[in-house]
Amino acid sequence: MANKLTHLDEQGQAIMVDISDKGVTTRVAIASARLTTEAEVLALLERAANKKGDVFATARVAGIMAAKRTSDLIPLCHPLALTKATIEFQVDATTNAIDVTATCAVEGKTGVEMEALTAASVAALTLYDMCKAVDPEMVIGDIKLLQKTGGKRGVWQREGAEYD
Amino acid sequence: MANKLTHLDEQGQAIMVDISDKGVTTRVAIASARLTTEAEVLALLERAANKKGDVFATARVAGIMAAKRTSDLIPLCHPLALTKATIEFQVDATTNAIDVTATCAVEGKTGVEMEALTAASVAALTLYDMCKAVDPEMVIGDIKLLQKTGGKRGVWQREGAEYD
Amino acid sequence: MANKLTHLDEQGQAIMVDISDKGVTTRVAIASARLTTEAEVLALLERAANKKGDVFATARVAGIMAAKRTSDLIPLCHPLALTKATIEFQVDATTNAIDVTATCAVEGKTGVEMEALTAASVAALTLYDMCKAVDPEMVIGDIKLLQKTGGKRGVWQREGAEYD
Amino acid sequence: MANKLTHLDEQGQAIMVDISDKGVTTRVAIASARLTTEAEVLALLERAANKKGDVFATARVAGIMAAKRTSDLIPLCHPLALTKATIEFQVDATTNAIDVTATCAVEGKTGVEMEALTAASVAALTLYDMCKAVDPEMVIGDIKLLQKTGGKRGVWQREGAEYD
Amino acid sequence: MANKLTHLDEQGQAIMVDISDKGVTTRVAIASARLTTEAEVLALLERAANKKGDVFATARVAGIMAAKRTSDLIPLCHPLALTKATIEFQVDATTNAIDVTATCAVEGKTGVEMEALTAASVAALTLYDMCKAVDPEMVIGDIKLLQKTGGKRGVWQREGAEYD
Amino acid sequence: MANKLTHLDEQGQAIMVDISDKGVTTRVAIASARLTTEAEVLALLERAANKKGDVFATARVAGIMAAKRTSDLIPLCHPLALTKATIEFQVDATTNAIDVTATCAVEGKTGVEMEALTAASVAALTLYDMCKAVDPEMVIGDIKLLQKTGGKRGVWQREGAEYD
Repeated sequence: MANKLTHLDEQGQAIMVDISDKGVTTRVAIASARLTTEAEVLALLERAANKKGDVFATARVAGIMAAKRTSDLIPLCHPLALTKATIEFQVDATTNAIDVTATCAVEGKTGVEMEALTAASVAALTLYDMCKAVDPEMVIGDIKLLQKTGGKRGVWQREGAEYD
Repeated sequence: MANKLTHLDEQGQAIMVDISDKGVTTRVAIASARLTTEAEVLALLERAANKKGDVFATARVAGIMAAKRTSDLIPLCHPLALTKATIEFQVDATTNAIDVTATCAVEGKTGVEMEALTAASVAALTLYDMCKAVDPEMVIGDIKLLQKTGGKRGVWQREGAEYD
Repeated sequence: MANKLTHLDEQGQAIMVDISDKGVTTRVAIASARLTTEAEVLALLERAANKKGDVFATARVAGIMAAKRTSDLIPLCHPLALTKATIEFQVDATTNAIDVTATCAVEGKTGVEMEALTAASVAALTLYDMCKAVDPEMVIGDIKLLQKTGGKRGVWQREGAEYD
Repeated sequence: MANKLTHLDEQGQAIMVDISDKGVTTRVAIASARLTTEAEVLALLERAANKKGDVFATARVAGIMAAKRTSDLIPLCHPLALTKATIEFQVDATTNAIDVTATCAVEGKTGVEMEALTAASVAALTLYDMCKAVDPEMVIGDIKLLQKTGGKRGVWQREGAEYD
Repeated sequence: MANKLTHLDEQGQAIMVDISDKGVTTRVAIASARLTTEAEVLALLERAANKKGDVFATARVAGIMAAKRTSDLIPLCHPLALTKATIEFQVDATTNAIDVTATCAVEGKTGVEMEALTAASVAALTLYDMCKAVDPEMVIGDIKLLQKTGGKRGVWQREGAEYD
Repeated sequence: MANKLTHLDEQGQAIMVDISDKGVTTRVAIASARLTTEAEVLALLERAANKKGDVFATARVAGIMAAKRTSDLIPLCHPLALTKATIEFQVDATTNAIDVTATCAVEGKTGVEMEALTAASVAALTLYDMCKAVDPEMVIGDIKLLQKTGGKRGVWQREGAEYD
């Protein structure tokens, strides 16, 4: 790991780091987010989903579109031509939570962690938006990187996260 | 609070709810996010800030710009002409965390919770981006509404959150 | 109806027309689009929809988001704070077509025809995108205004279009 | 041609398909749209064009800019670095119609059909916007792919469409 | 005039200033830009314009669209629903320059200076883009506010600028 | 240098020029802008900067983000995946001016002049926005290319500009 803030130059000024000389490799990142709510909201969401309601589809589309717009939102991110973006939801009834998992890939000179994290965050925010009239106390947390592959450092995996 | 998902119609289809007939009031929302990292990162951030580095300013600008783009990111949000957006950072050395607080206001027909939540999230993601080379294990959490005022329901305040 | 091109000045130059002095009224517009394909594609779409697949939800979200971005796409359109946007799909098995109906509303100084037309077009293009690997011969047509209300001229309704 | 909806996974969830492993080739797509109006509007357009009015130029610029923004509008489209975009208009006085032809190209892993179709659609919508005060009955149709080249399947050409 | 930087709070942090309590008035701003080139380029532009080429129309559309996107580009600008945007070009053969004049209007709580300045700048940059292969030495200057009306301070006019 | 307007076809129609067959090289461009104001504003800016205020950081972030959005603003620019973007400010107390220098790089088929010029312009406009309440007479000028490298023509350098 680096021991300095790579996005600042020697004067402390924000820069979009020069990656012109970095090699192009396939890079994949998986990130999560978790929306915690109450049993009543989960029940409404599942009832809607069972009636083919647009609940998760809307959040999924929002997450995928946000992944593509990451470099437009996060000031020092490089624009990247994503080659893959997917969003999964998993309802966890024991904790009244919905787990969001976002996967992004690119053939590029830099990684797609921010794309996966942004996608997971926006998907969770979209679920929040759809449920906020019922439960304004919801909390989004656990936004974190689970795994990344590609680039010089190869595979990085969060302890406890298991992906094939 | 509502007991149904307001963003779905009777067939379960996603809609941008009709707010044509709602009254215009001043609406304010305050939301938080929290980036948890390790002491080493906090030290780097503070050292950069002390040298007038662009660390927090970059995240602040990202959060404010994201607030303005909320309806472009969250599919069923109404476009709103924000009249205020601010972002505050508070370093919490005991937990190695940075607290983000976003405040948004509008004179409008609907609230600005999603704007404040999106601003806080993107500000935190921007800090994450700047520090991720040092600590890939960071986690963003506590994305939640602290307070909202305006509209028919008046003031709502999260228990334990104290704002004047 | 006007007998000149309102979006050009006397020199023939494109302008965003001055609407500063126009009154604010509730304005609604309904527009359509139609994607014509073959029976095989309709069967795939319906099978996916029956399994709660994201087919129509994805196109619906795309249409709603495009409505909000109309003034960013159509050069001389005024920015408008839409108060409503909905998209409906109707499968017509006799002609192997899918009818898209978009409804937009605003409290504003100018109408929302372009928003409804853009929403319907982008929803149809999104369906096209999802089906193009199966049927590259699809055609999108019948993009037209069905009805508009509000403003000085009151209600306009296309002959043969019946909406309440 | 495929016999399944490629943009849905096995669970029917919308995905931005993984194209990481696809080869980079030169890909070109040509698409059309057609705005049908009445003789009076065509006469106004031609008079404006003859006086060097910005009629077609405005629609052309709108179409080119929309081509570049396709992946931001169509949820499951991959971002692509277009290498070419052009828009042609042809007035057809016998049917009181204007034919729009859009051509896009890319060196990339996936085709540019959606870019050409989006460009043609937005160019036609822009003409509609400029003429709608004169003729609210206009219809946009014939949005379709005329030809595409590049990729594994080589050249595809719509029957009856002849391009060199 | 103010004697402090209004876009910074007491801690020096950038803020989108709270305008919730300001009154809504009609506000207009006129701004200029000037592209200085060489006689050869002016001759090419005029020849193109005489043949009904899209030279100035393209720059005009770019300027109008940029006006609408000002709050998305300038971090601390408030989003505003512009009610008017126009761009004029004037060729000055004695200095080999093209003068750009942008006018914007809004019914709003804050002025549209930045919208007019952004529109003029982007229109000039677009002309630059179209001519840069011929003359890479071009310079854009004189980006300045000519006049603004509306708001508490009423009319402000640059000395020497005369507009009705 | 070319002796025709490359962005128009033979009919004078605006086109996004076909660069499919051009080679990929590392391309760098450096551009400037200059904001001229009065001593009082410079003093306020320096006082804010000395207190770690967000003055220059905000303008720097705006410039970097604008660089990434150039092809979305300048109609005939190709979308490019920038590999570097930096903005420098230099206060010139003798002329009461702030010099902005923007540097952009890409591995691509076309140059990044417009990206560097757009970045410098938007950074200057952002400074203008932050200071306009104090000095509405400010002028932005000297927007020009200083140097470009890469592509068939190799290095181009403005006379008098010295960069390593």
